[in-house]
Amino acid sequence: MSEYDICVLGGGPGGYASALYAASAGLKVAIVEKETFGGTCLNRGCIPAKGLLQAAEVYRAVGHAKSFGFEVPAGETKIDWPQVNKRKQGVVNTLVKGLEGLIKKRKVDIFRGKGTMNADGKIVVDGQVIDSKNVIIVSGSVPKWFPGMEPGPRVITSDEATNSTWESLPKSVAVIGGGVIGVEFASVYIDMGVETTLLEFMDDPILPLGTDREVADTVAKALKKRGLKAIGGAKVGKLQDNGSSVTVPYEKGGKEESIEVEQVLVAVGRRPLSEDQGFEEAGVAIDQRGFIEVDTNTMQTSREGVYAVGDVVNTPGLAHVAYAEAIVAVKHILGENPVPLDYGKVPNIVYAHPEIAWSGMTEEQAKEAGIDYEVKKHGWPGNGRSMIVGETEGMVKIIAEKNGPIIGFHIAGPWASELMNGGYYAVNWEATPEDLGHLIHAHPTLAENIGETVITFSGRSLHN
Amino acid sequence: MSEYDICVLGGGPGGYASALYAASAGLKVAIVEKETFGGTCLNRGCIPAKGLLQAAEVYRAVGHAKSFGFEVPAGETKIDWPQVNKRKQGVVNTLVKGLEGLIKKRKVDIFRGKGTMNADGKIVVDGQVIDSKNVIIVSGSVPKWFPGMEPGPRVITSDEATNSTWESLPKSVAVIGGGVIGVEFASVYIDMGVETTLLEFMDDPILPLGTDREVADTVAKALKKRGLKAIGGAKVGKLQDNGSSVTVPYEKGGKEESIEVEQVLVAVGRRPLSEDQGFEEAGVAIDQRGFIEVDTNTMQTSREGVYAVGDVVNTPGLAHVAYAEAIVAVKHILGENPVPLDYGKVPNIVYAHPEIAWSGMTEEQAKEAGIDYEVKKHGWPGNGRSMIVGETEGMVKIIAEKNGPIIGFHIAGPWASELMNGGYYAVNWEATPEDLGHLIHAHPTLAENIGETVITFSGRSLHN
Repeated sequence: MSEYDICVLGGGPGGYASALYAASAGLKVAIVEKETFGGTCLNRGCIPAKGLLQAAEVYRAVGHAKSFGFEVPAGETKIDWPQVNKRKQGVVNTLVKGLEGLIKKRKVDIFRGKGTMNADGKIVVDGQVIDSKNVIIVSGSVPKWFPGMEPGPRVITSDEATNSTWESLPKSVAVIGGGVIGVEFASVYIDMGVETTLLEFMDDPILPLGTDREVADTVAKALKKRGLKAIGGAKVGKLQDNGSSVTVPYEKGGKEESIEVEQVLVAVGRRPLSEDQGFEEAGVAIDQRGFIEVDTNTMQTSREGVYAVGDVVNTPGLAHVAYAEAIVAVKHILGENPVPLDYGKVPNIVYAHPEIAWSGMTEEQAKEAGIDYEVKKHGWPGNGRSMIVGETEGMVKIIAEKNGPIIGFHIAGPWASELMNGGYYAVNWEATPEDLGHLIHAHPTLAENIGETVITFSGRSLHN
Repeated sequence: MSEYDICVLGGGPGGYASALYAASAGLKVAIVEKETFGGTCLNRGCIPAKGLLQAAEVYRAVGHAKSFGFEVPAGETKIDWPQVNKRKQGVVNTLVKGLEGLIKKRKVDIFRGKGTMNADGKIVVDGQVIDSKNVIIVSGSVPKWFPGMEPGPRVITSDEATNSTWESLPKSVAVIGGGVIGVEFASVYIDMGVETTLLEFMDDPILPLGTDREVADTVAKALKKRGLKAIGGAKVGKLQDNGSSVTVPYEKGGKEESIEVEQVLVAVGRRPLSEDQGFEEAGVAIDQRGFIEVDTNTMQTSREGVYAVGDVVNTPGLAHVAYAEAIVAVKHILGENPVPLDYGKVPNIVYAHPEIAWSGMTEEQAKEAGIDYEVKKHGWPGNGRSMIVGETEGMVKIIAEKNGPIIGFHIAGPWASELMNGGYYAVNWEATPEDLGHLIHAHPTLAENIGETVITFSGRSLHN
């Protein structure tokens, strides 16, 4: 009999969720982590990024305090960048500590060091073989870059952007890539007064893929209004570090252009970390792009008893997807019948200002799938609470099959990230607009805008 | 044939919703309003109150800016009370104007003046009888007070508190009544630095009735921590205006006490406005407490063709309840089969800081009803986003029938008001904790705390 039911390789979201959930179900678990518990998300991703975005929100609040009736003493409000980072790091440290405490409390054995897989499919740390019946690989991902964009003192990725040790912000930044990470950082930088240029290879510079175009455009408009220069169709060439600045050459519409900035944030995607750990040698199949292949009904790899979840598999690279996959894997190990994830319906969030959140199909996806759909949308002006809060950019956009369920739920605007919880339930429970229309949302809330939108599917309406 | 399908008496939430919804369904509608469209809610209630609460939030944000890394110039941040009120009033005015525009756009005829009902059950304005087939009475409610608490220059109700024309805030306030209105204003006052004492007749001074005790207590604790003096079991006597202050005598536990304050806010409830309008004379039955009697399946009164909705009927005095009742009444007039409201499941919100929101039963109600229930709860520390936002007071508390649906969904904490939209769907769609547990909420969101709580019903858990 093995000493452990499960050995979890990696202490990021998919890893600690695997360990905690399995332990709560009575399994004996080991977890291997070579750095800090929490992985990318907690240490170099979602949490510190949202810390910076929250700082930007506080700074905006101070900036508009006067219009709300609060006279800050005359003079300039200074950004104490080390303190911004210190507060954010404080949250990270507290969460890491809490996580470690929880892992120990559940009696999960911690192995610190780099784990690799041997030919028997067991995990080895510092020469010690961990005797486990099952393995869950949660080796994660790292930022990628293209040739000519190699990180350096003035060229960084999200790893460094979330862990700044600089005394102050750069005066100017070029963000390469208009995906979620690029847009979130661009939003922080413009709010902090940094001259920010975003360069994107696709024609739509802001969130070109996967986000409903019309919804993304409302955010693009808001970002540009606050000063973001967003350039689509830009092929970025080899970056040149001039000692105190970086020249960013790019080609657009056949013309060669360039900008000079103090700092470049490369945000062109992430790649799975599946190499140099013995997986392939142990018979765990890896695809051409480096993702570990799994059956998403069970999260089992090509080798029995070896599972993989999180960024190392080719599913949406989101912490909450990793959590859910962890539960699927553990339930399968327990011999239960897990409910597999419906990847097309997981919640997605862009924490820019304004925020975007969605679940289900974009209008483009519905069109492409040939679905006979109806779409209704409703902006924020007229919503009492959005006016009270002073944020009226964005929209609620709901897509439903004709006389059928809601298949796409999109919100851009204040607190979209939290408002989406209801939309997420609606999409997953296949509610119709009528099901939602019978419910009257509380007044005055932002959520009323959802109510207004669903009612219009009936051909009638309240306030829009 | 009548000139109008419906004459709506009163332009508050239930009134404008009746008119707008009916007009969108093709009915010919008249609406009567003697003052400003929007009624109590928009002019003297929810909207201006939330305007003040939002101001308090901005002031708190300025106060903690330094910890987030923003150095406001040295000196004291001054409260420009006229500007606080001006901004709030700007929102109200914009919404009133928008509402009027919408009413006109839907070709609803507006009659300005006081409407009364004649013996034929028709509405009369300035001697002109409005020829309508149906009437919807939406005459609303007004603040009430007990003898000895009559409003005066230093004794006010929410009507005046939401419409301050003072140059500055009072130094000290006594709030009489610990219900929703009293607690919301107490929250504003303490955040604005006003010395605030809340006196409540019941033993629990903060939200003694209708709110889950344990949830309300987390808010009571937070308010007291910020400086609120809350006194339960206090029988307030006759207020004495001393010219520059008011003495508030009260008896507690057999002892006579008193406090002296600059201002008193009387928040002991509201009463329906059903008198002096000819309703009773026209055969519309009114109960002992002054509420118009209705069949809540249709919102019809004892007189056929005469309906009543909103605060003038004995249902929860909430704007969104009035909206929903308006739709029920209009659908019945249209000859459709309206889905009646499930009053036990409507969303409730207290916009104090922290906010409370709930739908369905409190634990006390579940106990009293003899239901075999399970309850799970989860505080905010450990939730990444609440730590990022810097607000960790409150809890998520979910009550479910044993092996059955969720019957009570309670949230106290940051943005509880908006988070509740998902909880509200869950309660109304009779979801089980397991139904919700299959869904993994987005990371990092406040909504994750809901996910953590529902998962624990399974006997397993993620992070709590």
